[in-house]
Formats: sequence, C-alpha cells, structure tokens
Amino acid sequence: SEATAAAVAAIPPVSVTAKAAAAITWDGAPKIEAAVDPKDPGKGKWSFKPRGRLQVDVAGVDAPNGIPGNSLGYATELRRAFIGMEGTLPGNFGYRAEIDVANSGVELTDLFLTYKPKPELTLTLGQHKPFWGLEETTSDLFTSFMERAAFNSAFGFERRVGLSATYAKNALVVQGGVFADNAADLNNDANNSYSLDGRVVFMPRIGPGTLHVGGSVHMRDFNDVSSTARYRARPFVHTTDLRLVDTKAFSATGETSYGAELAYVAGRFHATGEGHWITARRPGLADPTFFGGYGEVGILLTDDTTAYKGGVYDRIRPKNPLGAGGIGAVQLNARYDYLDLNDGAITGGRQQVAGVSMLWIPTDYVRFILNYGHIWIDDAAVAAGVDRNYTADSLGMRAQFDF
Amino acid sequence: SEATAAAVAAIPPVSVTAKAAAAITWDGAPKIEAAVDPKDPGKGKWSFKPRGRLQVDVAGVDAPNGIPGNSLGYATELRRAFIGMEGTLPGNFGYRAEIDVANSGVELTDLFLTYKPKPELTLTLGQHKPFWGLEETTSDLFTSFMERAAFNSAFGFERRVGLSATYAKNALVVQGGVFADNAADLNNDANNSYSLDGRVVFMPRIGPGTLHVGGSVHMRDFNDVSSTARYRARPFVHTTDLRLVDTKAFSATGETSYGAELAYVAGRFHATGEGHWITARRPGLADPTFFGGYGEVGILLTDDTTAYKGGVYDRIRPKNPLGAGGIGAVQLNARYDYLDLNDGAITGGRQQVAGVSMLWIPTDYVRFILNYGHIWIDDAAVAAGVDRNYTADSLGMRAQFDF
Amino acid sequence: SEATAAAVAAIPPVSVTAKAAAAITWDGAPKIEAAVDPKDPGKGKWSFKPRGRLQVDVAGVDAPNGIPGNSLGYATELRRAFIGMEGTLPGNFGYRAEIDVANSGVELTDLFLTYKPKPELTLTLGQHKPFWGLEETTSDLFTSFMERAAFNSAFGFERRVGLSATYAKNALVVQGGVFADNAADLNNDANNSYSLDGRVVFMPRIGPGTLHVGGSVHMRDFNDVSSTARYRARPFVHTTDLRLVDTKAFSATGETSYGAELAYVAGRFHATGEGHWITARRPGLADPTFFGGYGEVGILLTDDTTAYKGGVYDRIRPKNPLGAGGIGAVQLNARYDYLDLNDGAITGGRQQVAGVSMLWIPTDYVRFILNYGHIWIDDAAVAAGVDRNYTADSLGMRAQFDF
Repeated sequence: SEATAAAVAAIPPVSVTAKAAAAITWDGAPKIEAAVDPKDPGKGKWSFKPRGRLQVDVAGVDAPNGIPGNSLGYATELRRAFIGMEGTLPGNFGYRAEIDVANSGVELTDLFLTYKPKPELTLTLGQHKPFWGLEETTSDLFTSFMERAAFNSAFGFERRVGLSATYAKNALVVQGGVFADNAADLNNDANNSYSLDGRVVFMPRIGPGTLHVGGSVHMRDFNDVSSTARYRARPFVHTTDLRLVDTKAFSATGETSYGAELAYVAGRFHATGEGHWITARRPGLADPTFFGGYGEVGILLTDDTTAYKGGVYDRIRPKNPLGAGGIGAVQLNARYDYLDLNDGAITGGRQQVAGVSMLWIPTDYVRFILNYGHIWIDDAAVAAGVDRNYTADSLGMRAQFDF
Repeated sequence: SEATAAAVAAIPPVSVTAKAAAAITWDGAPKIEAAVDPKDPGKGKWSFKPRGRLQVDVAGVDAPNGIPGNSLGYATELRRAFIGMEGTLPGNFGYRAEIDVANSGVELTDLFLTYKPKPELTLTLGQHKPFWGLEETTSDLFTSFMERAAFNSAFGFERRVGLSATYAKNALVVQGGVFADNAADLNNDANNSYSLDGRVVFMPRIGPGTLHVGGSVHMRDFNDVSSTARYRARPFVHTTDLRLVDTKAFSATGETSYGAELAYVAGRFHATGEGHWITARRPGLADPTFFGGYGEVGILLTDDTTAYKGGVYDRIRPKNPLGAGGIGAVQLNARYDYLDLNDGAITGGRQQVAGVSMLWIPTDYVRFILNYGHIWIDDAAVAAGVDRNYTADSLGMRAQFDF
Repeated sequence: SEATAAAVAAIPPVSVTAKAAAAITWDGAPKIEAAVDPKDPGKGKWSFKPRGRLQVDVAGVDAPNGIPGNSLGYATELRRAFIGMEGTLPGNFGYRAEIDVANSGVELTDLFLTYKPKPELTLTLGQHKPFWGLEETTSDLFTSFMERAAFNSAFGFERRVGLSATYAKNALVVQGGVFADNAADLNNDANNSYSLDGRVVFMPRIGPGTLHVGGSVHMRDFNDVSSTARYRARPFVHTTDLRLVDTKAFSATGETSYGAELAYVAGRFHATGEGHWITARRPGLADPTFFGGYGEVGILLTDDTTAYKGGVYDRIRPKNPLGAGGIGAVQLNARYDYLDLNDGAITGGRQQVAGVSMLWIPTDYVRFILNYGHIWIDDAAVAAGVDRNYTADSLGMRAQFDF
C-alpha cells in the first residue's frame, strides 16, 4: 500500500559498519545497541549509553556551642554531579568513563576497560572500587541514607587504579584484584603504593527472600609514598568538612582490613549489618585496630520491592510511578552506626549515630531523601569548649536524579 | 515485494524498555525521543540531547599610555567551551547538565532537575540563573554584542544553586525562587548566604510585533559568609581581566536590586532598553546605590526575522543559509551602555560605551560577531598615569558554534 | 502481511527537523547521521559521535644510583583519559570538542570548528595541532611506542588556538596556519605570542606501497609573554616527571624550527625517519640550534596491514580479531631515537634510546603495548652522583581503548 511504501522509505539505511540495525532502549538515557554480527553472538555487541547523576543536598549539624568555626550550620551542597559514558566494543570488551564535577573540578570516578572471556567472568582494568563491602559497593544512587555508614569514609574507601577479576554465577560472587592508588594520587610520580583486595559473597534464596553473606580482605602497602595513616569521619552528613572524630596522621607503613556483611532482602523488607576492622602497621610500635559497623532495617510503605542484585542493592523501580497514576515508592529506614577510632596510643574518638530516613522515589530515576541522625561523640577530636563527650543532631535532605 | 521485504528486515527491533520507537531529530546535535507510553501522553517523554558550544574571541583595548601592566592589548581567548547533556525522564521530569571548560578547568553552568506538573508551570532545582533581566536571561549564544551590558557582570549576575518556579502562559511569564550561592562558592562549607529573586514579563502582540515589558527584584543576605561587596566591570571586551571601573571591596551585609526591561521586536527590527539599580546594605553607614543600563537598536540586513520567545531573545534561523544558496543572516546593532559605580562614600568610577556590532549568521548554529566600542571612563579605578578621566577604544571578533 | 504491518508500525517516525531518516553506524561509539536535505547533498550532513579514550600505563626506569628523588621507579599512570564529541552541521561546518581528564583536571585537546568550502579544502578555527611532523600529527592512539620520539615533547609540540587551512588531494597534503598559544596559556590575558606553521606532504604510490615525504616549517615569536625558552625530554616513558636532559630556561625571544619526514608503508611493513631542528632566537647572543630525530622499522607478525592515510599513520584493523576466531594483530617495532640539547653555550645533554616494542591489537578499538628502551645519556642535566654520562633501562606497558 501507499502508506507502507512511505513508511518503508523512511527506514534508516542499514549501516555498513554495524552490519546490523541499531536498537534504542531507555535506561534513563538512551542506550544504542547493535550486534557486531547478527549471525554470530560470540562476536559481541556494540553499545553506547551516556551517564549522569546529580545530588543536591541541604543539611546541617546542631552541635554544642564551643566547637570552633561555623562549618556545621545548614549549608547547600552539590554532593555529586557525574557525567560520563559507557559501552561495549566488539570482542566482548566494555568500558565506563565517568567524572564527578560537583566541586567545580574533575574527580575521576569509574574509568575502566572490561573484558568478559565468558559470561560469568569479568576482568576490569582501570580505576574502580576495590570491593570493600556491601554498602560501599552499592551505588551511591541506591543507599538508604544520604551518606554511607561512617567507617566507609573513615577507613579511606575509594576507587583505585588496578586490575581485577569478578566471577559471578548463581548465588556466588568472587572478586579480587591488585590496585595501585586513586588516580589523583598517582599524579605524584613517586607513588608506588599498592594493595591486594578480595571479596566473596554468597546469596542463596532463603524462604521468601534472599540471604546475603559476604566477607572481604584488604592488604595495602604504602611503599614509601606515605609514612602516615589517618582515619576520620564526618558527622552523619557531608555538608561540613569538620570531622569530630579523627585519629590525625600517625606513623604507619601500611594497613590490613577485614569486612563482614550480612543482609536479608524480602519483598518490601530488608535488614543489613556490616562490620569492618582495619589495622595500621607500625613497625616497632603496637599496631592499632579500629572498628566500624552498622545495623539497618527498612521497609517500603508502598506496594514495591526492595531491589538487590549480584551482591549489591539495586535500583528500586516503583510499580505506580508519579505521572502514571501513582505517587511512586516510599521507604522508611532505621540505622545504628558505630565507629571507634580509639585503640592503644591512638585516641581518635568514638562516634555513634541513631538515624532514620524516609526515601521518596517518584519514578525510577528520581529520588528524594530526608534523614535525621542523633549523634553521640566520645573523646572527640574537636572539643566543644573543653568537653570531648557530647551529642549533636543532624538533619539533611537530598534531591537526586540520574540517567 | 522483495524490496519491501529487505527494507522491513532492516527495521530496528522494537525496544522492550521504551515500549515505543525512538525518533531522532536534529537541533545542532541529535535529539533522541520516545513516548514513555504511546497510549498515555500524560506519562511524559524520554528524551536526550548532547549539548556544546565554543566561542573563540580575538579582542583588545586601545587605552591611554600610563595604565599599568600589558593586559589590555590584543589577545586570543576561548570565551566559552561548554559540553553537556539535557533530557527528559518519565513523570514529566527533565534535566540539564553542562560545564564550561574554556579555562582548562570546570565551571558549572546549568546543572538542574525540572518538574512540570502542568505545561505552563516548571519547577527547577539545582544551579540556574536567578532571573536577573532580559539580556542576562537570554543565552550568551544570542546576544547582540560579544559581551552583555556592563551592569550584568558588574552587579555579580551568575548562576546559583536554588529552587524556583516559572509560570508561562500566553503573554505572561512569572518567575521566582530562593537561591543559595554559586556552586563553586558553596565548596566553602560555611557559606550560608541566600537570596530571593523574582521576575515578571508581559509580552503582548502590539501592531506588527511583540512588546516586552519586564521587571525583576532581588534580595540577598551574605549571612556571614562575606562581610564585603564589590562591583566592577571589564571595558567592553572580555580578553582583559583589568577593570577600569571598580568599587573595590567595601563592608556590606547584603544587597537589594531592581531591574526594568523594555523591548519591541518586529520582523527585522528590535529595540531594547534595560536598567538595573543595586543597593548594598551597610549597617551603620549610608547604603550606596549603583546604576547600570543600556539602550539598543538592531536591524537584520537580510530578509530574516529577529527571534524572541518566552521573555528572551532566541536563535535567529537564516532563511537562506550558507550552503543552501544563500549567505545566511546579517544583523547590525548599535548600543549605548552606561554604568555608574559612584555613590556617596564609594567612588568606583563611571563607564560609558557607544558600541556597534555586525553579526554574520551563516547557518542556525554558527555565528560571527565583529564589534567596536568607544569607551568613556570617569573617576577610573585604574588611572592612566595620574589621569582618572579618559577614553579608550575596543575592537573584538568572535567565532561561535553550538549544538 | 501481518508481519509486515507489525514491522512497519515499529518504524521510527520521520523527523520534521531532519527531513531525512537518521542512520547509525559504529566507529567505536555510534555515529548518528542524516542528510540535511536528501535531495541536495550540497547542503551538507548532520552528524554526531561521542569520543573517548583511556590509556593506562605501568612503567619505570632503572637508572644508576645517585639520581636524587624516587620518581624513576615503577609507577602506574592514567596517561590519557579523553572524553568528547564531534559532528557536522549544515552548511559544511564540522566540529570536535574533547578534553583530557587523566590528571583529575581539564586539559583541552581538540576544540575546533571546521568549514569545508570544497571536499579538498578544510579551514579549522580553534585549538588544534600546528602540523609539527609525522609522528606528532599521528594520533597518540596509533603510535608504535608508548611515547613519541623525544624531540616531539622536547621541542614543545602542543595544540594551540589558531586558524589554519588544509588542502588534501590525491597524493598531496598542504597545511598552514597562524596560531596564538595553548588554550591554558592564553588564560594569561597578557599572552600575545603567535606562530606561523606550515607542512607539506607528498605520498605517491611506489611499488607495492606508499612513500611519504614531508617537511614542515615553524616560526614563533614569544612577543613579551615569555623571555625564556626551555627544551627537555623524559627518559622514554611518561611515568616519571624527571627529565635527564634539560636545557633549563635561557633567555630567548622566539624560535624557528624545521622538520623532515620520510616513510615507506607496504602491507605488513613500515619504515619511518624524522628529523627536527629548532633554533632559539637570542638577540645579542649566539642562537643555539638543537636537533632530534629517529629511525624506525616495524612489521606485523599477523596477516594484517599497516594503516596509513592522508599523511599520518592510521588505525590498524585486525583481519581476525579476538572474539571472531582470531587473536587480532601483533606488530613488532624497533627504533633508534636521538636528541641533542647541546649547542654553543647551552648544555642540555644528549639522549639516545634503542627501543623495541610489541603491540597486540585484539580488536580495532583495543590495544596493548609492551616496550623496552636502552637509554644513553651524555652531559646529563641530572647527574647520577657526580656522573653526567650514564645509561639506563626502561620498561613500560600500556592498555588502551578508544571509541
């Protein structure tokens, strides 16, 4: 028919290079895909997707008078502003390149090449996360509170340039790699620090849900780039740069740490617990060990499902999103977060937080967080006047989208 | 037929996620779009478009001898180099993320999330312009001269992180919001400054054209992040960092400003006038008020139409572009620009500029500007020898493209 | 038929703006294209393609004891991490915008607008390479060793903001332009340095291959932005910032340089030789001239073809890539690289390197390099103890992908 003829005339010409028509699907941003060779899936896929995220925070800490400076008050912060791209190339290679520009500079986040010799095995080269634990490995887009538990930043978890392998099949994930340092720190051409990092997760279906049991081991040698270690954490929110607990820099040549992870996820409900022990190596002195951990429970008030996949929490996709007759998903979470930076000769202080959060997820790619934390500080690194044992309260809000 | 069959075989597979075929249109760069649900337009649209712009300037100022330094001479500058992305998400959300890398660093420009509960109402959260006036709100891609009138930079107009609402229907635009500070300044965690900003535009059809009448009000409290204000402006071009008029920093706790806008746009012709009054609050001292404004007329020499839309000047699209049998559009503009930074105890100087510009717009996305300004300086902040009253001449050229 | 009807229903709607269906082809990333007017090719094409590259290096130098500092040891470096975009606009305009974020900052690379009045002529405005020579003009994605020959960095080859023309037809390429300075250096508003740069390449088919004969001329005037020149080079790899040969800064007002290029490329084989002479102008003093050059031969061990096009080396595309039944391409290269920074009153030292490299190119867009260099240093700028004549060995590996 004439209509058919007109429509056919509008068909995009078949690409000579691609040898297959491209398909466009949407995951926030459009993902453009094509088979390298439609007749041979073994040759892999072309794909490309832009990436981005924005987190705008307003938060503050109400602490006792006598703490110097005025950095604890309510402040607005662009917490993260990522722009990037990811894709796959022929031969089962893939990549991600993403930068964080929130601080009006460039902080490299994921920047790596992957190779998948078989579906269950992924080799990764470049800057990526060294498998620290459940919450650190979970994307910051999907955490239950605005900030991760205090130990995640206190113990220096960060992305590093390295080579790693991840094996994932059925209920098992095994990850291990050798890493140098964060890309920015490698700008120092004398930096020859390195670490070995590994993590194992077992995640069987148990009853109506999924059990998550995990552990990780990390060994790092500063190897003359640094002769000191320092551990410290912000008070529940990120809008202040003041750390009330802080070991300050002390002499060390390396560090070893262990993480334990336990979670259960079923329908609307999830419970998570993690602990992490880090020991700094101080030749000729006692090696101090610090501990941090948290326990959390959460429940979706709407008829939605907590998302967990491949050893990490994933994107919650509301069944009745805003704009489609619903209001999206609403989740309540409660958490107790503990960090102890006191051991032996080192007195960095102890921080405990009792926190509650409400997440409103109107659609898959937009999220709002309101959270409150009551903070107990002992042996504070920053005294309130002369008082090193005090409490504080913190309230924060986040608006977030990603694509 | 066989031809039809072959063509049909090449049709891209329908995406499962998108549930609708994607369309690609061009607005400089490709815009990829799809309905979230083809049967329910209320669910909104997926869309994505890369963004970018480059402005390369060569300009200089011929000023009297005796001005210290050699920064006024002819120089080449990458004025702006933006890269970014924008799009829409299900649920009537939208976003833009764009950075300026012209200075070999990152300056955040638009970085925001929008929500449109109805077509005439847009809520915006993130870094965006606080509705300062007609020329400031108009994109720098579409200004009549290389630089905006002096008061736009002198009075510190910039993008800030905030939450705002814009109502636009028929001949009316109403905008208002609450803002913190520019994202880069918010890196200081003690920054708790804020402002309230509003603007109203009425733009009825009058005779053969459109009348634009607008006004804006701005109230900002430095709120202890700064105890000083400073107003200053470059001499007509941006290739120099030397400001011949400059109040220098003086004690202040906040500022209030008012803007008035008037324009008439008809076919090839446009005329624009703006004025802005800013008062710095100085508790215990007299509050100085400074004023800047300009009047401009312009005409397209080619058979083209000046573009105006939604309270701002828009993209001129030549009827006979280069490459399609024509030479594009050519516009001549003349302007008188006035800035007075003298009031009471503050002597920042007065700058007047008589300027003419010629714009050549070979195609929708490429533009060249040649402009000249004769500058009168009184009570200069930078003396030429001992002379604080002098004249200067400035010539500049710009080449620009965007997508 | 019903199948046809269903398929036709899935056809993307024809874009009103584009007036032609968009085609997607793959060159690492997807390239989206459409004719501005399918009936008139003279109106040009819309196109857009994201760009990116990552090079991860591990390398070190084994030098004699006594060299101060510890920057020569083995180190990991993100050598380059580019993200960008390129495209074409109606009217035969085109652009590229790309930044390097490897150092956790922004370094502008290509950032320009092009105009092609006819197929063989390209005008370029913005930051681009001033036609220094064969290896410098060849993309860093396609060099035979991890780093270019020492003179390329020693003599300050870099991208600069300028206006140039390239004429390319049959076996001839003629390039010339006027340039200001690197974009980052232009942030200094007193920078008014400029250069004139030209290059000619003749590349006839001779026997089974292509002969490349080229020459370039460069004249730069510092024009008061700088009163000194400095030439120096790293030892074979880029993971160290220590230069063993270095003239240190000496008074100069400008520089003139000449380059000569010779190559032969046939099937698996290629041979290349280049030399470059640079003379610094020192009014009232003798003008020193420094020389650098290299000779190289290379051969592909696999049944593949060395790629050369338009006066530069190009992308090698393995016939039997990984994932498609093959292992990709393997190339062996050997090179002698010479740099003499001694002349008259200036003693910067002399560096010679005998290098071998093995490239593994599993697919078109992924490349691994392993290279080794034996280095002879005479009159070193950095003494090993008191010894200024010594040898060193350097080993490096690179993993690279681009799109």
